[in-house]
Amino acid sequence: MVFSVAVAGASGYAGGELLRLLAGHPEFSVRTVTANSNAGQRLVDVQPHLRSLSHLTLSDTTSESLSGHDVVFLALPHGKSGVLTAHLPADTLVVDCGADHRLESERDWAAFYGGDYYGAWAYGVPELPTASGRLRDLLASARRIAAPGCNASTVALALAPGIRAGVIEEADLVAVLAVGPSGAGKSLKLPNLAAEILGSANPYAVGGTHRHIPEIQQSLRWAGASQPTISFTPVIVPMSRGILSTATARLVPGTSAAAVRAAWEETYADEHFVHVLPEGHFPRTADVLGANTALIGLAVDEAAGRVVTITAVDNLVKGTAGAAIQSANIALGLPQALGLTMNGVAP
Amino acid sequence: MVFSVAVAGASGYAGGELLRLLAGHPEFSVRTVTANSNAGQRLVDVQPHLRSLSHLTLSDTTSESLSGHDVVFLALPHGKSGVLTAHLPADTLVVDCGADHRLESERDWAAFYGGDYYGAWAYGVPELPTASGRLRDLLASARRIAAPGCNASTVALALAPGIRAGVIEEADLVAVLAVGPSGAGKSLKLPNLAAEILGSANPYAVGGTHRHIPEIQQSLRWAGASQPTISFTPVIVPMSRGILSTATARLVPGTSAAAVRAAWEETYADEHFVHVLPEGHFPRTADVLGANTALIGLAVDEAAGRVVTITAVDNLVKGTAGAAIQSANIALGLPQALGLTMNGVAP
Amino acid sequence: MVFSVAVAGASGYAGGELLRLLAGHPEFSVRTVTANSNAGQRLVDVQPHLRSLSHLTLSDTTSESLSGHDVVFLALPHGKSGVLTAHLPADTLVVDCGADHRLESERDWAAFYGGDYYGAWAYGVPELPTASGRLRDLLASARRIAAPGCNASTVALALAPGIRAGVIEEADLVAVLAVGPSGAGKSLKLPNLAAEILGSANPYAVGGTHRHIPEIQQSLRWAGASQPTISFTPVIVPMSRGILSTATARLVPGTSAAAVRAAWEETYADEHFVHVLPEGHFPRTADVLGANTALIGLAVDEAAGRVVTITAVDNLVKGTAGAAIQSANIALGLPQALGLTMNGVAP
Amino acid sequence: MVFSVAVAGASGYAGGELLRLLAGHPEFSVRTVTANSNAGQRLVDVQPHLRSLSHLTLSDTTSESLSGHDVVFLALPHGKSGVLTAHLPADTLVVDCGADHRLESERDWAAFYGGDYYGAWAYGVPELPTASGRLRDLLASARRIAAPGCNASTVALALAPGIRAGVIEEADLVAVLAVGPSGAGKSLKLPNLAAEILGSANPYAVGGTHRHIPEIQQSLRWAGASQPTISFTPVIVPMSRGILSTATARLVPGTSAAAVRAAWEETYADEHFVHVLPEGHFPRTADVLGANTALIGLAVDEAAGRVVTITAVDNLVKGTAGAAIQSANIALGLPQALGLTMNGVAP
Repeated sequence: MVFSVAVAGASGYAGGELLRLLAGHPEFSVRTVTANSNAGQRLVDVQPHLRSLSHLTLSDTTSESLSGHDVVFLALPHGKSGVLTAHLPADTLVVDCGADHRLESERDWAAFYGGDYYGAWAYGVPELPTASGRLRDLLASARRIAAPGCNASTVALALAPGIRAGVIEEADLVAVLAVGPSGAGKSLKLPNLAAEILGSANPYAVGGTHRHIPEIQQSLRWAGASQPTISFTPVIVPMSRGILSTATARLVPGTSAAAVRAAWEETYADEHFVHVLPEGHFPRTADVLGANTALIGLAVDEAAGRVVTITAVDNLVKGTAGAAIQSANIALGLPQALGLTMNGVAP
Repeated sequence: MVFSVAVAGASGYAGGELLRLLAGHPEFSVRTVTANSNAGQRLVDVQPHLRSLSHLTLSDTTSESLSGHDVVFLALPHGKSGVLTAHLPADTLVVDCGADHRLESERDWAAFYGGDYYGAWAYGVPELPTASGRLRDLLASARRIAAPGCNASTVALALAPGIRAGVIEEADLVAVLAVGPSGAGKSLKLPNLAAEILGSANPYAVGGTHRHIPEIQQSLRWAGASQPTISFTPVIVPMSRGILSTATARLVPGTSAAAVRAAWEETYADEHFVHVLPEGHFPRTADVLGANTALIGLAVDEAAGRVVTITAVDNLVKGTAGAAIQSANIALGLPQALGLTMNGVAP
Repeated sequence: MVFSVAVAGASGYAGGELLRLLAGHPEFSVRTVTANSNAGQRLVDVQPHLRSLSHLTLSDTTSESLSGHDVVFLALPHGKSGVLTAHLPADTLVVDCGADHRLESERDWAAFYGGDYYGAWAYGVPELPTASGRLRDLLASARRIAAPGCNASTVALALAPGIRAGVIEEADLVAVLAVGPSGAGKSLKLPNLAAEILGSANPYAVGGTHRHIPEIQQSLRWAGASQPTISFTPVIVPMSRGILSTATARLVPGTSAAAVRAAWEETYADEHFVHVLPEGHFPRTADVLGANTALIGLAVDEAAGRVVTITAVDNLVKGTAGAAIQSANIALGLPQALGLTMNGVAP
Repeated sequence: MVFSVAVAGASGYAGGELLRLLAGHPEFSVRTVTANSNAGQRLVDVQPHLRSLSHLTLSDTTSESLSGHDVVFLALPHGKSGVLTAHLPADTLVVDCGADHRLESERDWAAFYGGDYYGAWAYGVPELPTASGRLRDLLASARRIAAPGCNASTVALALAPGIRAGVIEEADLVAVLAVGPSGAGKSLKLPNLAAEILGSANPYAVGGTHRHIPEIQQSLRWAGASQPTISFTPVIVPMSRGILSTATARLVPGTSAAAVRAAWEETYADEHFVHVLPEGHFPRTADVLGANTALIGLAVDEAAGRVVTITAVDNLVKGTAGAAIQSANIALGLPQALGLTMNGVAP
C-alpha cells in the first residue's frame, strides 16, 4: 500500500528535507506541498535540488489543502501547528516538526515559548529509553507525533543511557554543541548571513535560555532522571548542516569505565540508527550528513571525574525530517528504516 | 632603538604569523628567517602573503644562524627548542612558541609530552592574575619566555578571574572549544586535509588526553586554585583560525550574579587586550581574527548552577604569535601593544 | 538477479563514494573491498560514514582478490588499472574511475600523462551526443568502461549541445571551474590542507596544463567538433565537493538566442540526469550534492558575442562514482538510474 | 597634521572596513560615524571587531553630521551619495565607495543602474594605466573620488597591461570571478544566508547583466582600448571575503610569451600594491586577506591562443576601503601606503 502524503511548510529547510527523503520512500507518495508566501510557485523553483518532484506546485497552507491525505507532515514556525491540526481528521497521521507539541509541561512551555499551549504528542525519538522500554512503543499506535528538536534529541540520546543505568549523575550535566546554520531556517536575520558565519564560530542563547533545555530534561526524566540540570550552549559553526554535541556528566563515584561503556552499548545494541562507536573512536558530523544516524563516541575522563559523550547527528535528518519519517514508519507499521539511510555523504 | 630579530621555523603557520606581525612592528627588524626543508627558498615563495618581506631568504635553523640578534623567536616542533636555546647567549631575548618551556612540573611534562624536560620559562600571558599581581610582572625582566598554548591560555584567561575571586569552584571545570585547523600546523596528516574538515565538526583528543590540560591547571593554580580539575574537549571546525571556548564552572553557592560579573570586570578592567563584554553580549571568533584581543562573554546560569564563559581568541595571534610579541615588548620595556592591533578583520 | 561487486581503492574518496552508492543499489552486492596501505582494516574504520557496510574488511588490491565478481569498480591512482585489468576475465564488467583508459589518442596520453599507454575504453558519460546518437549506445554492450574525469565530463556536457547543433564555434572555448578539494583525493600535500583552503580561492594547473583538457576535446570531437581549442582553469574553493563550471563559447554569428536554447534543450530533453534549466535560472553545486544530476543554465550574452553555460555537478557522483554506476547499469541492461538519485542534499 | 574624518554608512561591511583601516592610520582621526537604522547605537555594538573605536556612537547620516571634517568617506547604497554630497563644501575631500560617481557615460549609467545620474569623479585605482600615465595623476588634486567596484577594478588591473601594450585583443575578453559574499553587504536576502552559501558555489548576474561590466570597459578604454567586449561571470563561493579573478584574452597573433610578460611587469614594476608574480606562480585570495594588495599571476596558453591572468584581491580592501584610503592619501599629498599593509592574513 502506498500512503498519500502532504507536506506543509515545503519551502523551508525542514520541509525540503522531508521532501528529499519522501521522494526516495517506496511507500509514501507526496501529493500536496504547501507554503505561505511561496504558494503558487513550482516546488522546484523554490527547492531547486528536488528535481524528481518538479511536477509539484506549492499551494496555500490550510486545513483544506492538507485534508484527504493519509499522512501530513508539518514543518511550520512555532505556534502554527496547534490551530491547523485541530481541523484535521483524528485518523490522519500528523507529524509536526515544530515545537508546538513537544513539551508535556505547560509550565515549561510558558517559560520557554509562551503563547497558547497545545499539549504534548508522542515524541518522535524511537530509541530513547523509558522506564518500561522505548519511546518506540508509544509511537506504534500514534496518530499525532511531535518530531524532536534537533539539539534536544541529540543531547538526550547521548546522555539517556547513563541516566538509565545510573552510572552518571543527573545534576550538573554540561553540553556544548557545534551546529550548522540550517537549523535556524530561512529566517532573514543578520546573524544568519553567510558573511557573519563564514570563518567564524558564533555562540547564541548562552546561559540557560535555549528552548531545547526543557525538552532535554523531559527526555532524561523518561530515562529515569528526577530533576536533571544542564548547562547548554550552542555554537554556530561554518557548515551548512550537522550537530556535534559534546555532552558530559559527572561519573557516579565508584563506577568503572567498563560499566559506563556497557550502559551505552546495551542501550543501543539493537538499534539500527543509533550506534555507539568502539573505544577511542569519535564521530564527525560529515559521517552522518544526509543520514538518519546518530553516532556516539564515549570516554571516561577519570581525572576530571566526567563521562564525555561526543554525538554526531544531521540536524535536518535524524534531528528533524528523518526522525519524523522514521516515526511515521513505526506508526504505520512499516519497517522503521524505510526510505532512510544510515550512510552519510562524506567527504 | 630598533631590535634585530630572528625567527626560527619561519615556514610554518606560527612562524608566518610572527613575521606578519613583526613586519608591522616599528621597533623590530627581521634580519634572519630559518627553516628546515624549506631552507634556501625565498620566504615569499613559502609564505606568499608576506609581500613586504620578499627580500628575505630562509636559512637553516642552527644556533649559529640564530646568534647575533637581540631577539629570537622560535616556532619549532616540540622538543627542538630545548637543545637549540642552550647555545644562545643568556642576554638574548628568546621567545619560544613551542611547548618545551611551558610546564613547571616535570611530572606533567612526562605524563603529557615525554622525552627530555627543559624546565619552565616565564609564561607569556601577561594578563593572567597571580597571588601577587600579574604574570606581566615576571615578564618584565625575562630573557627566556614561553609563549602559551593557544587553547590553554584561552581557557585560563576565561576562568582565572572566577578562581581568583573565589566565585567559582575549581573542581569540575568543563571546557569545549571550537578551533580552526591552523593550530595543527602544516602537518601532512589525513585529518588535516580540507576534504576531511570542510562541512564537518571533528573532535579530537577526547577524554582528558589533550596536552594543554596541565598548562591550564598550572595557570589556574597561579590564580589561586589548589587542585583544579577540568574536562577539556577541542572540536575542529571549518574556519582557518580562531578559538571559541565555552568554559563553565560551578558557581560557588550563594554567590550573586553581580559578584560574578565584578570578578571578571575587575580582573581585566585595565587590560588593553582582554575585554569583558557587557551583560548579554558574547563574542565571535571573527571579531578577533588577526587581532591580539581576547573577548570574554559571561553568563550565570542559575538553573544549572554554572557560570558560563565564552571566549574568542585568534589562535595564531593572542594564542601564539601575538602573545609572543606582546611578551617581548614587555621584556624589552616597550609599550606592550606595539605592533599589535586590538581590532579584528571582519567579516 | 543480484550482481556481485568488488571495489578496488575502497579507502579513497572515489572508492568511498562508489560504496555509498552501491550500498543503496538493489541489484549490486558488494562482496570485496580492497586497498593498499589500509588493507586489513575494517572498511568502516577507514570510511566511518559507511555504516551499513561495517561487515566488510579491506583486502589487498590484486587481480586475485578482484577475480570472481560480476562487476569490478577500480578507483586507483593513474597507471594502476592498466596492469591490473589485463588479468581480469574478459566477461567481467570492469569500470575504471582512473584516467588510464579515457584517451583514444596515444599522443594526448603521452603529452598530458606519460608512461605506458593502455588504450581507450567505452567512455562513461551516456548522455554525450555523437554523430550517430549517444555514448549510451556504446556502453550497452561494453565490458570495459572508463568513468570520466569529473571536470572533463562537466565541461563536455555543457558545451557539446552547441557544438552538435553548430550554434557555437569550436575555437576559443573558455572554461573556469570552481571545484571542491575532494577531487584531489586523500593526497597528503600541502595545498590540500584545510588551513590552505578554508577562506580562500586557489587556482591550479593554470595556462593549459590540466590533464582533462584533451579529454574535453575528445568529447567535443565526438559531438562534431574538428579541432576544438579551450582555455581551461580550475579554482579550488572551500566546499568539500562540487564543480561549478562556467564554460563559454563564441556564438556563431547570426544565431538567435532561441536557436541556442533549442540546441541544449533538444539534446537533453529525454535525459534523466542532465537537465537544462529554464531561461534565467542557473544552478548551484548544493543543488546536486550527492546526486547524479548535471544541471545546466544557459545565457546568450549578445554584447560579448558569447554563449555562457553554468553547469553544476557533484564531482564524486555524476563526475565519477555515479557515472560509473550509471554506465554499469546500462552495460548490464538494468535501468540506468538504479541506485542513483537525481535529488541533491541541500542546504 | 592629522585630518578629521567622517564615515557615512559605518554599520555596513564597507564602512566597517574603512574604520578598521582608519583606526590604524597615523594621519586620520575618525570623529564621526553615521548610519541609518543603527543610529544611536555604540559603533562597537554594531561592529564588535572594532574594539579601538568603542568610544564612537553612530549618528544619523545627514549633510549636517558629515560637515566640518577634512575627509568624508561614504559607504552608502547606490543613489544615496549624489544628493548628500551636493551639500558638502567643495574643499572637503569626499570619497564615495558606492557606484554613483564611477561611470563617465550617462548611457552606461542608464543601462546598468538607472535613476538620476550624478556624473563621474576621479576613479580610485591609482595604478591603472592611461594614455598619458596613471590614474594616480588625476587623484593628486582631486576633492571628489569614486572608489571602484571591487570586481571591476580587479579585472581592469588584470587586463589593462595587455591592452596598453597591444599584446592582447580587446574583443572577446572573458572573466570568471570567485567572490566572497561580503561584497553583497548586509542585505537580508535569501541568497545571502549562510545555509545557501556554505558548501556551494553559486553564480549570479550571468549573461552580461552585472553592473561592473561598463566600469571594466571604461577602465580598459583609459588603457587604450576602443570598444572592448567582455563576458563576465561572478560566482559566490564560501569564503567571507576575497576575489579570485580568472580573466583571459586572445593573444595578439605573433606575440611572444616574453612580450606578454614584459607588458605586465613593466606596467606594475614600480607599484607598491600591485605585484606580478613570477612565471608559474599564481595567487590565492588568502594571500591578500586584509591587505591592499592585488597579486597577478600570468600564463600564456599557446594551444588556446589566450593569455590567462589570475588576480587575487580582498574585495573590502583593495576592492573598496583600501582603494578609498590609498586614493585619499594621494589626494592629500600623503604617502599612498599610509595606514595600509601589503601583507595578507594567512592562513
